[in-house]
Formats: sequence, C-alpha cells, structure tokens
Amino acid sequence: MTPSRVLLFQFYPLLLLPLLLQSVSHKIPRLSPHNKEALILRNPDDVISTSAISKDFKTHFYSQTLDHFNYAPQSYATFRQRYVVNSKYWGGPTSNSPIFAYLGAEAPLDEDQEVIGFLNDNAPHFKSLSVYIEHRFYGKSVPFGKMEDAMKNATLRGYFSSAQAIADYAEILLHVKHKFAAHYSPIIVVGGSYGGKLASWFRLKYPHIALGALASSAPVLYFDNITPQNGYYSIVTKDFEEVSKNCYQTIKNSWAEIDKVASKPKGLSILSQRFKTCSHLNNSDELKDFLDTMYSVAAQYNHPPTYPVTVVCKGIDGAPAGTDVIGRIFAGVVSYRGNRTCYDTNAYNYPSETSVGWEWQTCSEIVIPIGRGENDTMFPAAPFDLHEFAKSCKDFYGVPPRPHWITTYYGGHDIKLVLNRFGSNIIFSNGLRDPYSSGGVLEDLSESIVAVTTPKGSHCLDILYSAKTDPDWLILQRKREIEIIEGWLKTYYSDLQALKR
Amino acid sequence: MTPSRVLLFQFYPLLLLPLLLQSVSHKIPRLSPHNKEALILRNPDDVISTSAISKDFKTHFYSQTLDHFNYAPQSYATFRQRYVVNSKYWGGPTSNSPIFAYLGAEAPLDEDQEVIGFLNDNAPHFKSLSVYIEHRFYGKSVPFGKMEDAMKNATLRGYFSSAQAIADYAEILLHVKHKFAAHYSPIIVVGGSYGGKLASWFRLKYPHIALGALASSAPVLYFDNITPQNGYYSIVTKDFEEVSKNCYQTIKNSWAEIDKVASKPKGLSILSQRFKTCSHLNNSDELKDFLDTMYSVAAQYNHPPTYPVTVVCKGIDGAPAGTDVIGRIFAGVVSYRGNRTCYDTNAYNYPSETSVGWEWQTCSEIVIPIGRGENDTMFPAAPFDLHEFAKSCKDFYGVPPRPHWITTYYGGHDIKLVLNRFGSNIIFSNGLRDPYSSGGVLEDLSESIVAVTTPKGSHCLDILYSAKTDPDWLILQRKREIEIIEGWLKTYYSDLQALKR
Repeated sequence: MTPSRVLLFQFYPLLLLPLLLQSVSHKIPRLSPHNKEALILRNPDDVISTSAISKDFKTHFYSQTLDHFNYAPQSYATFRQRYVVNSKYWGGPTSNSPIFAYLGAEAPLDEDQEVIGFLNDNAPHFKSLSVYIEHRFYGKSVPFGKMEDAMKNATLRGYFSSAQAIADYAEILLHVKHKFAAHYSPIIVVGGSYGGKLASWFRLKYPHIALGALASSAPVLYFDNITPQNGYYSIVTKDFEEVSKNCYQTIKNSWAEIDKVASKPKGLSILSQRFKTCSHLNNSDELKDFLDTMYSVAAQYNHPPTYPVTVVCKGIDGAPAGTDVIGRIFAGVVSYRGNRTCYDTNAYNYPSETSVGWEWQTCSEIVIPIGRGENDTMFPAAPFDLHEFAKSCKDFYGVPPRPHWITTYYGGHDIKLVLNRFGSNIIFSNGLRDPYSSGGVLEDLSESIVAVTTPKGSHCLDILYSAKTDPDWLILQRKREIEIIEGWLKTYYSDLQALKR
Repeated sequence: MTPSRVLLFQFYPLLLLPLLLQSVSHKIPRLSPHNKEALILRNPDDVISTSAISKDFKTHFYSQTLDHFNYAPQSYATFRQRYVVNSKYWGGPTSNSPIFAYLGAEAPLDEDQEVIGFLNDNAPHFKSLSVYIEHRFYGKSVPFGKMEDAMKNATLRGYFSSAQAIADYAEILLHVKHKFAAHYSPIIVVGGSYGGKLASWFRLKYPHIALGALASSAPVLYFDNITPQNGYYSIVTKDFEEVSKNCYQTIKNSWAEIDKVASKPKGLSILSQRFKTCSHLNNSDELKDFLDTMYSVAAQYNHPPTYPVTVVCKGIDGAPAGTDVIGRIFAGVVSYRGNRTCYDTNAYNYPSETSVGWEWQTCSEIVIPIGRGENDTMFPAAPFDLHEFAKSCKDFYGVPPRPHWITTYYGGHDIKLVLNRFGSNIIFSNGLRDPYSSGGVLEDLSESIVAVTTPKGSHCLDILYSAKTDPDWLILQRKREIEIIEGWLKTYYSDLQALKR
C-alpha cells in the first residue's frame, strides 16, 4: 500500500475485486445520503413516521432501454428497472397536484425508502405523489441478472453511467405521468449526495420533465480541479478542530506515533493489542486507514442529536490524565464504536453492491479528485495524482477514466457566470460540517437557483425523515426548502393558467 | 408504390439502398439550409464575399470519442472529425472576443462553407473567430473510413445520433477555446434547419459552452404530434395559392388528370412524351413524385430575387390560352428547370451522402411525422402512419425508430410553459413561406428566447452569405439578429466584469 493512499468509508470490494484494492491508490468517498455505519449512534425510534408510511409503497418495474444514446441493435435491449410509488396522498390529475420524485443513487432502493423521508413527510401538505426510482445497476435494477456478473462484463458495464441514469429517470417519469394521467402535474426531483448531483443535472438537462430540483449535499463542483483537492479533508479537520483543539491536535500527532510504534520490534503486535483489533495487523496502514475512514464518516454523517465528531472527541479528550496519544485515539474508537471485545479494522471495507458499483463509477465518469497536501489537514499527506489514478483504473477495468467529461456534459466551471442567467428552480442544500460541502454550491447563483446552508448540518440531513430530535435549525432548513418549492409551484400554476386561457 | 407515399426532395438512395425505396412509405424532407437543386435559379455572382473569405479557412481534425455516453472498451475508439477555422478577424483572447460556431448538419462541411455566410460576414464587426464543425458520419468525419461502409455496419451506425453529435461539438469547442487561449470568449452557435435544431438544443444542453444560439429554420416542434401532420404541405399549398389562385387550382386538379391519362391505353407513353421524360415512365407515381418534390423544393427554397414558386406559377399560368392541365403543369416544369431536351424525373432521387445519412437519421431518431389528409393541401392524401413507418424502418435497418425519444431528451411539448422561465439566449428565426416553419417556434418564448420571422422568407435565408440582391426585409432580419446577439454579449461582458471584481 502506497503512502499516498487515501482510504475512506468506502466499503472496499475486498472479495469481489481484490486486484483493485492493490492498484487504486485513491478511494473516492461514498456519496450516499446515509451510511449504516454512520447510523450506529442514531436511534430509529426517533423517526416520526417511517413505518406508518412505508406500507403504502407500491413497487413497479419499467422496461428500460439499455442505451438511450445509441441505435445499434444491442442498444435496444431492455431491462427491468424498479420504481416505487406512494399515492396515498395524491391529489389526482384534475388538481394537477405535484409529483415528488426521488432519484436513486449508488445503492439499492430499499435502503433509500427507509430513510429518505422528505417526499412522504410532505406528501399530505402538497397532496403529492411520491415516486422513488432505483439507479441502473443497483438493487433490483441490474441489467440481465446479478450485479456481480454485470460488473464483470466490460461491455455491459459500459452502460453504467450518469447520463444513461438520468435518461432512465426521464423515461420513467414520463411513464408515471402518463399512467396517472398527470400531464400538467409539475415534477420536483429530489436527490442526496451523488443523487443530489443527478437531481440538479436532471433539472438542467430535462427542464421539460422536472419543474425543479432539491439537490441535497451535492458536490457538483468537486470535479476537474474546480474545488481544491484538500477540500474534503479540510472540512473533516475543521469539524474536529471546532469541537476540540486538543482532540484535533491529538489526532494530528497520532499518525507519527502509530508509525513510531509500528517500526519497533513487534510493533504491529503492540498496535494490535492496544487497539484490540479482531485480527492481527499486517501493517500500520490497515490501522491508519481504519481511523482515517472513521473520522471521515463521523464528520460526513455528523448527525444530531449525538454528533459523532463530538462523541469521538469526548473519548479522546476524556481519557484519564496521563494517557498517551495511542491510548487517547483508542478511547476515541471505543467512544464512537462502543465497548467491544475487539475492533474490526476492516469494518469499512466489506464489499457491497454499492462499493462495487461506486468504485466503477468513480473510476470511469465520476472522477472526484480528493487529496491532501502536507500539513493542510490533520491527516498525513496523500496528494491526488490524476495520472496514477487513471493508470490504476485502466489496469483494473481495461479502460481509463474520462475525468473531464463530467464538466463537459454538465458544466461546473464558472458556474455563477453560466447559471446566473440560465436555468431556474434548483435548491442546492448543504450542511457546512459535511466535508462534501467543500464541493457544493454555497451561494445563490440566481434568483431561483439558490443555496440553502446550515452551519451545523452534515450530509443530506434535510431529506431524511423528520425525527423528534431534529434541532430547530434543521426544521427551519426544511421549512425554507418547502417555501421555495411552494413558490415554484405557485408560479407554475399561474403560468399554466395564463397559457390555457 | 403505395398511394400514401410522400416523396419529397430527398435524394433517394436508389443505388445504395434499393430496398428502402420499396419499403419506406414516407420520406422526411431534407432539412439542409441549402439545396443544390434549389439554387438553380440563384446567381452565384450575387454573393458579396464568399471567395474573398474562404481562402482564410484552415482545416483541422479532432480526435473524437466514438461514444460519449458509454464506457465499454469499444466506446473509447476515436475517429477524425473535421472542423474549419477562420481567424482572420479574431480579436484575440485578451479582448475575450466572441467565437461564432456553425454546427454542421446532414451534409459534408464543404457545402456549408460555401453558403453559410453569417459567421464570416459578421466577423469583422465582432472581431470573432469563425468555426465550422462537421457532423459525424458526413464528409470527412465518417468513423473509420467510407460512409458507405459505415452505414452498412449496424453497430457502427448506432453511434450516429444527434446527442452524440452535439457532444462532439461540445468537445471540439472546448478544444478550440483551449487552443486559442480563449477561456472567457463567449461562443454563439449557429445552425440551419436540422443544424438549427442542433444549435438550439446545444444552447439548452450545454449552456456552459455556448452563450447563445441562432437556430435558423429549425422545426423543433415537428415531432411526436406537436405539429399537425399536414403542416409542411399546408404551407407549400399556401405558398402557391398566394402567388396565384389559378396556379394552385391547376396543380390541385393535375393529379387526377395525370391518373386519368395514365389509366388510358399507352397512357404512360403519353405522359412520358408530354413531360419529355428522359426515360420512359414505369408508373404515374414516378411523375407525381417528381412534381410533388419540385413544388416542395420550390416552396422551401423560395429565395429572392427569383422566388421559385413564382417562376413555377409563371409557367403554369402563362401557358397559351387553351392549354390543358397537363400542358400547364409541364410549362411549370420548363419554367422552373429551364428548357431542356428532356426532364429527368429522378432528378431529386440520386443518392448522396446526405440522403443516405439523413434516411437513417429520420428512420431512427429524427422521426418527423409529415403527412397529408384528404383535401387539406393541393396534393393527394398521404397520411403519416407511424406504425407502418416504424415497420419499414425496422425491416430495412433491423431496428425500429424511437419516435418519442427526441421529445423525451430535448422537450418540445408545451414549449412556452417550459422555456418561459428556463434557459435563455436563443433566436428561432423562420421565413413564413418555408414549409418547415410550420414546426418552428414563431412566437417569443421568453424575453431572451425569441422568434424572428419574415413573412416572405423561406428556408435558412438569414444565415446564407449576404447578396447584392437581398431584399430589405432580409437585411433587416439579419440586423435584428445581430442586435439581439450584441445584447447577449453586452450582458455577458458586464456579468464577467462584475464577477471578476
């Protein structure tokens, strides 16, 4: 493992893709709105409405075109794509009630249905139809069978891209409108993280299908050197520093300490023992990667009411006086992950559909250049080297990434200059404690392409189900988003009225 | 040949694609800004500047990605795509002078360079760079060799689509900007007919690359039943009727007369003789198709100063008193096509790269449902039957068309409702005598997505080179377009200034 390797909270495809683990030196952090690991401090009982609503979900499958942009015979193949509808509160077509559509991202849809509450929570108010659509190649929407098989097939894998995915959404949404006779029902697309990018891109590319987009925690600017490489880890660092200078400093010092111990005779045994690792450490990077990811997950999913960063720092700072740096770091682990007989340093590395799919996406199209310089974060340096990254992707997948295509197709450079007078109706929402907010849109681009930020917020909080424990600032954030969307709808209905006259 | 067959001024691929001629019952009119046949009445000496400027064209080739939306190994293949630059008047990057880019359509670029004068005519005024880009699969931009071979290959043909074409333009324009160090130079895209659609779609899909679009004679609404089927032929009919009621009535009566003569013993010989056809007619449809196309070409390219429709009608109406209907129609042919020893009824049918390529485009993606009902035009009925059309395309190419994809990807339905508050900086220009204006945008959609129409104009006149014989209304149309574009640029430069401050 090279020293420049940045391991995040990606679930590594250790089992499925063993070669990649060796060859790709940079991992791109996952962009999901939620993270099971991150939810370990969250009490599901806090959620107000999930179970009451989920029984109203109806699952459908759409016969989806494999390739929307190609007319070769093989492009006409179709696969079953899953979408889920809740029509319990739907006001019906005569009232032109709105449709809220969640654009699935790099995960099976089931996971999203359980946590993305924005649509259902607001359905009674808007009398809206709630539609959740699964992203191609995840969950039950893998073309022609199993994800594992699909991902092994270089030709089939080629169809796995964001442009195809939003074209899928376009087709399904027109299909749903037709099915519900909802020709003039405005559609608002909602997405979080990578799905938030998809939502904003969808509004820009398909304004005739979606009236507006709520793009939660969408780092649309973390491409092609628009955002400084170290944006992500700078915010992780800041999150810790703001909670406790001492905690931050301890973490910053810890890497050298770990290396020092590791270099001693039987150093790895000492480390394994002190960190109570479930299996013996083979090298110090295993431990450092685990810690690195743990801090990042804590920062990205720094949810109320527990605030994981605070929990980690409580452990580090609260260790008995005289505890050394290693001991304090371990206390942070215990505080965050609970008292266990042993700690699995691979906890963040187990492969999943998401990790396998996301690995490909970030190695082909969604190239996010995240890196770290010397001393610009609390982590060891790990600069992003595009050349090296491209090489490792090519070695593994046989094709290189296209790092400039995202900005060619969707834009991003000089975004204010471009969108100040083009487009409309996008909310970019960000919590400023979310490391991915470094690549987000944090200021209004125009009157109707606006930024909604919360200084204490983390990743995608606004689109999760409301919870009893939600702080006021989160309640207000959602309220503001609803008001903006109501404004879009009001204008739309009055335009519709005027044109029909 | 079925009675519903609509033959237009498509150059039929008689030689290359003999089967198709038998099987496709509807031909989609060509959408080129110019038509060699149509220029037979135009005097090249009238053009003010062509030859003086064309020597400044420099040809380049860009290594273009075969498939922008797919990541299979075969998608990474590249082909040489031609583009041509005239930098004679270019003000350079320090002044952020604009770039005017002509988006090539269904023809080799050479043809366009000769006639599309809008860029060069205005270059001295704007100090602009002129860039002409060839559409993939035409001219010198056919992937991997000859057009004929490419079109026979069902897999290769699959890459021949509009979405790929505008993605090509995006890559080349970014490349040109980079090459000329013109990062902040605004790009205005210009296109005519199908190329005009591409220009408007380009502005909508790639606003970060083009600041604005001049979409000349772009029937963006002639899809998916947005425009009535008979829109095209209604205007052809109106054009003739407005020039002469008598001429219109003679043409209207002629079809039955032709059929009557044809049904006589030796009727086809009589017709062949009366129309001085170069080869003996095999059936009356050959003659009717020729006439149908001739009227349509005359109407679509009803250019000043000669006005072909007037020329045809002069022949028809000016025949000596007592001339029968057949004789008058023939007089119209002579008047329009000149005094010849014989008349080739296949004149509009000879295959060309354009006809072969356009045939595929209209049979896969650009499905334009043009038809005629009973008595709603001066032509025999020939309704468009999507089912039959799709079947014949499938029979010939092995894959069916995707008639709804264009509106799914680019929109079109309820265009005012959608674009009134989305997007900016598009001019839809139309001459109202152009039959394709029936599918054009003829009213302002918003403050900056505007329609510029001329009641006497025909297809794409505004983007041709200025000519000494240009009537005032054409001069004024161009002037208005220039003023609008100047407005876009002014706003852009002031936005740029404000953001840099």
